[in-house]
Amino acid sequence: MSDQPITPVPAHEPPYYVAVFTSLRTPDASGYDETATRLGELVQEIPGYLGEDSARTPGGLAVTVAYFRDLAGIEQWRRHAEHRAAKERGRRQWYDRYSVHIARVEQSHSFRRTGTP
Amino acid sequence: MSDQPITPVPAHEPPYYVAVFTSLRTPDASGYDETATRLGELVQEIPGYLGEDSARTPGGLAVTVAYFRDLAGIEQWRRHAEHRAAKERGRRQWYDRYSVHIARVEQSHSFRRTGTP
Repeated sequence: MSDQPITPVPAHEPPYYVAVFTSLRTPDASGYDETATRLGELVQEIPGYLGEDSARTPGGLAVTVAYFRDLAGIEQWRRHAEHRAAKERGRRQWYDRYSVHIARVEQSHSFRRTGTP
Repeated sequence: MSDQPITPVPAHEPPYYVAVFTSLRTPDASGYDETATRLGELVQEIPGYLGEDSARTPGGLAVTVAYFRDLAGIEQWRRHAEHRAAKERGRRQWYDRYSVHIARVEQSHSFRRTGTP
């Protein structure tokens, strides 16, 4: 959920799952950052959570990809009470529109420049 | 590939495919923008291409999700000569590291605020 300069989540051995969440926000950001930080902590407690890549354009399009070892982890996160409450509030307050795509990774690879630490 | 304020690609009827590309760039950006623009045009010629969501953090992490109706479209894009040449140049020049995750969408939904045009 942050805009920190982090490294991409590496490719894992398929199969695993991605949850792609793309969104445009409303102008009402009150409470958003606190909730995003809290959810970012909670999701790390989900068994099989593998990490997240997230970025936002200056125009406000946010693209977040969360990686999970299996669908059970995604389902557990989807049913998580605080996550559900946050999504409810998000639809009421923070999001103008969003899309969610849950997908099973069939192929993956990573590249790292030689000599990169 | 651009940072324009665009709307998220909507959920389609599963199954369809996502190609998630996350990357960190090197300081050498010469030729990058021209190539990205050209590839952004070419990919639209791929049958079953459904669109793309893309954003980059201030720290340089880029997250791009391209959507395709089927794996054949992804394979055709992967084999495309100009795309292959660009990837080759990318590994030589533009990318410090990247990950690619090809995944089959099993569930999806979109939200749009009531009254949003």
